[in-house]
Amino acid sequence: MPSIKDVANLAGVGVGTVSRVINNHLNVTPETMEKVNAAIKQLNYIPNEVARNFKMQKSTMVALLLPSIWHPFFSELAYYIEDELDREGFKLMLCNSGGRPDKELYYIDMLNQNKVAGIIGITYNDIEDGVSTDIPIISIDRHFGKKITCVTSDNYNGGRVALQELIKSGVKKAAYLGITSSIYSEVILRKNGFIDEAEGQGIEYIIYEEKGDVYNDNVYFENFFKIKENRDVDGIFANTDLLAAKYIDRAKKYGIRTPEDVKVIGYDGIQDNKLFHPILSTIRQPVEEMGRMSVKLLLRKIEGETLEQEIYRIPVKYRLGETT
Amino acid sequence: MPSIKDVANLAGVGVGTVSRVINNHLNVTPETMEKVNAAIKQLNYIPNEVARNFKMQKSTMVALLLPSIWHPFFSELAYYIEDELDREGFKLMLCNSGGRPDKELYYIDMLNQNKVAGIIGITYNDIEDGVSTDIPIISIDRHFGKKITCVTSDNYNGGRVALQELIKSGVKKAAYLGITSSIYSEVILRKNGFIDEAEGQGIEYIIYEEKGDVYNDNVYFENFFKIKENRDVDGIFANTDLLAAKYIDRAKKYGIRTPEDVKVIGYDGIQDNKLFHPILSTIRQPVEEMGRMSVKLLLRKIEGETLEQEIYRIPVKYRLGETT
Repeated sequence: MPSIKDVANLAGVGVGTVSRVINNHLNVTPETMEKVNAAIKQLNYIPNEVARNFKMQKSTMVALLLPSIWHPFFSELAYYIEDELDREGFKLMLCNSGGRPDKELYYIDMLNQNKVAGIIGITYNDIEDGVSTDIPIISIDRHFGKKITCVTSDNYNGGRVALQELIKSGVKKAAYLGITSSIYSEVILRKNGFIDEAEGQGIEYIIYEEKGDVYNDNVYFENFFKIKENRDVDGIFANTDLLAAKYIDRAKKYGIRTPEDVKVIGYDGIQDNKLFHPILSTIRQPVEEMGRMSVKLLLRKIEGETLEQEIYRIPVKYRLGETT
Repeated sequence: MPSIKDVANLAGVGVGTVSRVINNHLNVTPETMEKVNAAIKQLNYIPNEVARNFKMQKSTMVALLLPSIWHPFFSELAYYIEDELDREGFKLMLCNSGGRPDKELYYIDMLNQNKVAGIIGITYNDIEDGVSTDIPIISIDRHFGKKITCVTSDNYNGGRVALQELIKSGVKKAAYLGITSSIYSEVILRKNGFIDEAEGQGIEYIIYEEKGDVYNDNVYFENFFKIKENRDVDGIFANTDLLAAKYIDRAKKYGIRTPEDVKVIGYDGIQDNKLFHPILSTIRQPVEEMGRMSVKLLLRKIEGETLEQEIYRIPVKYRLGETT
């Protein structure tokens, strides 16, 4: 069966244009309309669910809940989610919901009222009660108590690989640096992978964590360097790139150089150019795949399908930078 | 007259919660509902246009068209626009429309059909024909031929200040580096301010530009350094931070050090921490003010007001980094 993409390709226009012709929108030139209609006829194209939804006034909007779009990891993710939604004829509503459960619940209301077709969310607020399994939601990184489908990077393996790479670069005593959330999410597996790998290889290691809701840069690092046994650490795995960069900056003030004295690996891969230094060695999240897969799974849920798998974990890769 | 914010403050809840109570949404606890209703009664609050729009099923959505959300300047801008819209009871639809005029026209269609209430756009596509003056649109940086309200930073003064700061740091021969667009926008004033300041101060200067649609990092900088008279430049004003960072990186390969041999100033202020180097000296865009003002002006347009001013220019500030 031909798809809307086939029509667009044949007519030499974008999918959005085809959708506009099908739905009798304004701003289509007569020539374009003719080209598209000719392609529809030639391919015997039947507008699919999405196109029909337009006519039936069903919502073609998906809400994306993020702690904050003003963060390179989230803005990259939003970029791919919007792109994938657009390919499928859906639109993106954006909500910065960091620390604002009321905003998240508002969008869940909209979903219950069919004002949005589905939700993709990275959320760390306490909204368990507002979420039920029978509404189309995809959660990134976070597990809900109920069986909400979760898309995430392979955090556990990321933690293992990080320690393997530290050891390869000569590290004898490694520390895991983390900031924790009161909400359980897959992020914790970065630590678990690190610990299991350290135990397996029999290497000395330290776990250093603080709670996100009381986190403060100064206190965090002062306390870290105060502890004598943390001073001779020669390898760091920080659970985000930002935390890795903060460690490097603070360590410098104690005369500790990266990578000469300490090798450092982060997690995320937020640097998309090599213009600013240090270029972090990091476990790169498969952001594009995570974004596109979230959309694909959500659309299947919107169409009423029951997904068999609860968690979709996407492989990560180690990216060598200047800090190991 | 009391506002929805007054009600929220008195009830000790967010504006979104008040809106949810007014509109009989789900996910409001009985206690919250009681608190909000008590506050409404006490203040004699009458739901405003926005709240009424909910009931009347008018759209409370605003579309934001950006070249790409995956860029620190745009994601910061989107952050503040979403926050300001949320305060006013509106929602944000996000569209990455770089190189995709069809996507932009699609949103203009939605506006014409009242599916979105208004549009805020940073757009470099050729969509003049789709845009009319009587629809609520705010354009950032770009002028349309018609009288579309434009919000922008004071680019002209930014260009002047950049050169003044270069001269203060000892520069004798300055170059302006730019990437141009076929669409006329306020960005060009960065160059004009630079030139006027250079002429006024009688300092030697060079203008070096290439078109964005054929731009290529390698070609751009090879050609720049090929020209003999560009080699003894000791000050650079690049029209974006990214271009400034690229210059610094390339110059290094020619043995030119920043700031020892050349002082460099960018434009935007995309670095929001001091963890990655070089920390650029830059003309910082007033991103928060631009975002919030765009929303405020748009809402006035949505309410039918005619704005007197065509262009709103917001002052910029020089931010000292490590490159001057």
